[in-house]
Amino acid sequence: MPQLYIGNKNYSSWSMRPWVLLKQAGIPFEEVMVRFDSFNGDSQFKATLRDLTPTGKVPLLVDGDLTVWDTLAIAEYLAEQYPDKQLWPQDKAARARARSVCAEMHSGFTALRGNCPMNVEADLAQAGALIWRDKAGVRADVARLAAMWEGLLDQYGGPLLFGPFSVADAYFAPVCTRLKTYALPLPPKAAAYVDRVLALPGVKAWTDAALTEKDFLDFEEPYRLTP
Amino acid sequence: MPQLYIGNKNYSSWSMRPWVLLKQAGIPFEEVMVRFDSFNGDSQFKATLRDLTPTGKVPLLVDGDLTVWDTLAIAEYLAEQYPDKQLWPQDKAARARARSVCAEMHSGFTALRGNCPMNVEADLAQAGALIWRDKAGVRADVARLAAMWEGLLDQYGGPLLFGPFSVADAYFAPVCTRLKTYALPLPPKAAAYVDRVLALPGVKAWTDAALTEKDFLDFEEPYRLTP
Repeated sequence: MPQLYIGNKNYSSWSMRPWVLLKQAGIPFEEVMVRFDSFNGDSQFKATLRDLTPTGKVPLLVDGDLTVWDTLAIAEYLAEQYPDKQLWPQDKAARARARSVCAEMHSGFTALRGNCPMNVEADLAQAGALIWRDKAGVRADVARLAAMWEGLLDQYGGPLLFGPFSVADAYFAPVCTRLKTYALPLPPKAAAYVDRVLALPGVKAWTDAALTEKDFLDFEEPYRLTP
Repeated sequence: MPQLYIGNKNYSSWSMRPWVLLKQAGIPFEEVMVRFDSFNGDSQFKATLRDLTPTGKVPLLVDGDLTVWDTLAIAEYLAEQYPDKQLWPQDKAARARARSVCAEMHSGFTALRGNCPMNVEADLAQAGALIWRDKAGVRADVARLAAMWEGLLDQYGGPLLFGPFSVADAYFAPVCTRLKTYALPLPPKAAAYVDRVLALPGVKAWTDAALTEKDFLDFEEPYRLTP
């Protein structure tokens, strides 16, 4: 059974993606939580990962002798290993488009990611309103997301981006939690997509666990004193 | 025949990756150069791309009705379309590792990328020496690259990262030009890999064209007055 190494569920947006992919697709796996104490070289986090991966980061998939890192490589590996799960769309053009939007997420949306770090448990609507007022880059990122999602929902008919659940929905799941945490405005069709993603059992399993985690870290909390 | 939209050959490291992949693999394609005038909304660059891609960025692959953007998605698309070219390693474990290092490149090495923008034509050894002296992040990125490359060359026997040419070598080709432009120090085995990559016909075709381009842009030249 593959092992997935992840960070804190409240904060680790990159860990959330492959975890949701595995869970929602019904692929059995063992979760290994490596708590974020800090990301310094002498942290327990780095010490735990040092012998497993040269990048010292989560997520990390260990399957027998094989170690796969970086979310997109994990997704491709799982898609190859479990073809019956149809993790990518079956149609060639849809699959190319799904990979395009995932790669775009992998390297982009830096304003949204930088200004609105994932924080499932928090209600940061007021911080979000200030960010929305002051950060044109965040408004541009959200506009691109809304246009992307609405375009794909129109083209493929919903309920998810390419019809049924795919890697693309797992890729945007942490973004959906951010949009909710910071209460950023969305047009109706995109907002309804966010609601549907957050209601997926695989997503809800993650966010429910994040809510019970209660392991708050100042360095992940730029907008509030930790509870 | 697919069309690949690219930016200036002297500067556009992301364009270089799929171009080298196509060229070195011998896949026929039409190159469409979209000159970098600026990246402002009113630029000719953005106007040209506006109707083609929602991201407004190069590289972009157009194959009939299909538009594929973002380098990693283009690589996966080409690997599916041209299975005989074996763009990814054939062995499952090697393929997973190749995708891991490409995804790591896709989202990482930000200190090297930020401090040492690609500039094939320039000799920026002096700037490179200052960067090397002052930027611990650049030193860490180069150390990671050297360890990655030497580890893979040992494991798979060379001459390239996974034996024969693969997506991974195309992914690191612009990094090889940077290491040369800025004359950053490397251990011998990694330095020899850089030389082998720069001598690949598909890579040399790009760098030779970059040398004749002579379209210098101040906003791509933080370290010198443009010639």
